Amino acid sequence: MFQKILVANRGEIAVRIIRACQEMGIQTVAVYSEADEDALHMQLADEAVCIGPSKASDSYLNMQNILSAAVITGAQAIHPGFGFLSENSTFAAMCEEVNIVFIGPDKETIDQMGNKANAREMMRKANVPIVPGSDSFLESDEEVLETAEAIGFPVIVKAVAGGGGKGMRVVNSSDQLLQAFNSAKSEAKAAFGDDRMYMEKIISPAKHIEIQLLGDHFGNVIHLGERDCSMQRNHQKILEEAPSHILSEDQRKHIGAAAVRAAEYVGYKNAGTVEFLLDASGEFYFMEMNTRIQVEHPITEMISDFDIVQEQIKIANNEPLSIDQDSLQLKGHSIECRINAENPAFNFAPSPGVIKYLNLPSGGNGLRVDTALFAGGEIPPYYDAMIAKVITHGNTREIAIAKMKRALKEMVVEGIQTNLAFQLDLLDDEEFINGKYDTEYLENTFIPKWQNRLEEE
Amino acid sequence: MFQKILVANRGEIAVRIIRACQEMGIQTVAVYSEADEDALHMQLADEAVCIGPSKASDSYLNMQNILSAAVITGAQAIHPGFGFLSENSTFAAMCEEVNIVFIGPDKETIDQMGNKANAREMMRKANVPIVPGSDSFLESDEEVLETAEAIGFPVIVKAVAGGGGKGMRVVNSSDQLLQAFNSAKSEAKAAFGDDRMYMEKIISPAKHIEIQLLGDHFGNVIHLGERDCSMQRNHQKILEEAPSHILSEDQRKHIGAAAVRAAEYVGYKNAGTVEFLLDASGEFYFMEMNTRIQVEHPITEMISDFDIVQEQIKIANNEPLSIDQDSLQLKGHSIECRINAENPAFNFAPSPGVIKYLNLPSGGNGLRVDTALFAGGEIPPYYDAMIAKVITHGNTREIAIAKMKRALKEMVVEGIQTNLAFQLDLLDDEEFINGKYDTEYLENTFIPKWQNRLEEE
Repeated sequence: MFQKILVANRGEIAVRIIRACQEMGIQTVAVYSEADEDALHMQLADEAVCIGPSKASDSYLNMQNILSAAVITGAQAIHPGFGFLSENSTFAAMCEEVNIVFIGPDKETIDQMGNKANAREMMRKANVPIVPGSDSFLESDEEVLETAEAIGFPVIVKAVAGGGGKGMRVVNSSDQLLQAFNSAKSEAKAAFGDDRMYMEKIISPAKHIEIQLLGDHFGNVIHLGERDCSMQRNHQKILEEAPSHILSEDQRKHIGAAAVRAAEYVGYKNAGTVEFLLDASGEFYFMEMNTRIQVEHPITEMISDFDIVQEQIKIANNEPLSIDQDSLQLKGHSIECRINAENPAFNFAPSPGVIKYLNLPSGGNGLRVDTALFAGGEIPPYYDAMIAKVITHGNTREIAIAKMKRALKEMVVEGIQTNLAFQLDLLDDEEFINGKYDTEYLENTFIPKWQNRLEEE
Repeated sequence: MFQKILVANRGEIAVRIIRACQEMGIQTVAVYSEADEDALHMQLADEAVCIGPSKASDSYLNMQNILSAAVITGAQAIHPGFGFLSENSTFAAMCEEVNIVFIGPDKETIDQMGNKANAREMMRKANVPIVPGSDSFLESDEEVLETAEAIGFPVIVKAVAGGGGKGMRVVNSSDQLLQAFNSAKSEAKAAFGDDRMYMEKIISPAKHIEIQLLGDHFGNVIHLGERDCSMQRNHQKILEEAPSHILSEDQRKHIGAAAVRAAEYVGYKNAGTVEFLLDASGEFYFMEMNTRIQVEHPITEMISDFDIVQEQIKIANNEPLSIDQDSLQLKGHSIECRINAENPAFNFAPSPGVIKYLNLPSGGNGLRVDTALFAGGEIPPYYDAMIAKVITHGNTREIAIAKMKRALKEMVVEGIQTNLAFQLDLLDDEEFINGKYDTEYLENTFIPKWQNRLEEE
């Protein structure tokens, strides 16, 4: 096993990975920016190396500095977490060049799945249902118009290299199509240096259902069931649950098998997630594959009693999977609420600052809080607003919800604004309780309703 | 189901019960002494009633005041937790008189098991092995001397009404016997108003193995496996684990069956624990039955994924047990470390005071912290020194230990002294790691060794 792992990330996921290493007896190296000089991840690690100024592009995205830190400290592997360099095949290749193990899939797999048009094509070949759309990237205006007519409006045009909502436009009719296409194309050029575009039909209403996968270096692939991540705002998930409340056993079986087929087709190694859209008729379509650990992985850990991060490390160390599909038992129901440093009453404006007082919920079985928060610590303005994940588990969904409500009511974060009260209101929402909410529900229905009520008060 | 429950306790167990109620949708009433005006249990409950001055005898043991609080607030049931009034049959009877459900076994059962000589006698009839000793309470000096000769020294003489180490003496030879007997008898008279005494052989070396039981009002009794609570100082457990590391499957089966037999014989209803001593030859002997929830119940909850406190409430509400013996699955290994407000380097002197800074361990599956601690809160000098329970669970004992070590290293409690460092040293101890430690190991071997090392440093 590796003696020392460098964690190329910050915040709760860096802390999560460091704890996993500690429990495995592996030494850890944290890297931190100037803004994170007192951050929990650097305090908990055995060693810590400053890798640059606060801006992520100068530190957490600075491949040279991170690799230097790994070489200097003698780390044998790097865990990239999520975001930052986690899906950067150049970084994976650079790790390989200096004989450091990148804890994730092959750089080729990262590339194949990172190119969204290519991923569609591979999935089609793997017999995984894909959203109706262009066969490859679109070149001429005619091709754009023809494709849209063929699949039917509304459509979404997307950058092949896309991510983070950039380089994409929803288009409702042909007269807006070319203008939207070209503006997204320019945006893609600026953001990714790659203006290749493709098109998909808009599946709506739809559920966002994703399957957690694990593959090893011996050709074994298993899935750990699905997560329902349909509660989203600006394409950011805010509450996730596993299993999905609305999937039939038959759908569950088909969608899990499709995800495994996808991973087997690309020879997937390590942890990954296939995201699907499930339409109102029960058909599901491949959306994308994330070649890294996901923010919401804990809800799968809660229902499987399995440590996905530790398994990532074992896989990277060339060990075969610890479990097989048949011996895996999923039990009960788990929910995750993402706690963000933001002000929902002020259009979710980020709210960085110093944590003046902190009380994290605790006690009892089936409650887990993953966070890098501590009293006196600072939330810098430079990074993601997600500062804690509160995760509950119960034998039933009702119990998991009840636990979550009592947990969030106990949580106190003073000094900054958070979405705690917003999440509590969401837990009381009828559409959440019945479990039928789609990907547009939060943004188009719940938030406007919530804001109206706020104004009336 | 009850709409409102009064929790007749304080500290972490009161908080534990309040959380259980919240998750079941039951309103809660906290009671608090003047010393606990800002305590967490009174903050978390829906209502809170002051029941008297700081001294426990004036507040948490004040039956009239607690019952008045229950009547005034309309509570339909009282959960007594552990300690205080939890094994007081008079209080159980008083609850019955005002039509409030006492969440625990019948007052008759409390009495039967509270009288230790009587409990021995009943167990003998139930065909549960008992420690060799007197058949009933001892009257004459001759009887005392004869019994001791018959069973062999060392012996322990104990008050029938005993508890908390009062009214008991270990005697190694006949020349000390009568003096020790009479001094313990006087002590018992003063402490319990009952000077009846009995005698047992000292089983040493021995393991303290206890079985968690649940019985309902329909004659169903199950056990949830054993706990090894042999790590003790002054008869106080400080670290517990489940399952025991040294029990064979055969021993496990026999000891579990004996505990169920005991509970069935007395018609036990609600949660209870039968404590056994396991000697070096593998024989086990009934020690006592605790007719209440135990401090260390969470380790059983971790391996069974079952909420014992919620089950207590359901049983008291005349519901049948939620599970049967055959469907119960115990999984993995769990450890609890009791965190005490005390200074191990100063002979474990209590260390009350204000919590100036607090960081509770968190994150990941299989970690649970049950506590009433919060930053700014006060540990009053009037009550038990146990202020937090850190509980971990893993698929193996090694994983549970590794998790515990990383958790205790993360825990910060400033403003008072705690046994955190002591517990961490214990987790590294070879005799703990091999799991063979007996009930005298901590006090007679580990602590002297630990204190010597401290002096050398």
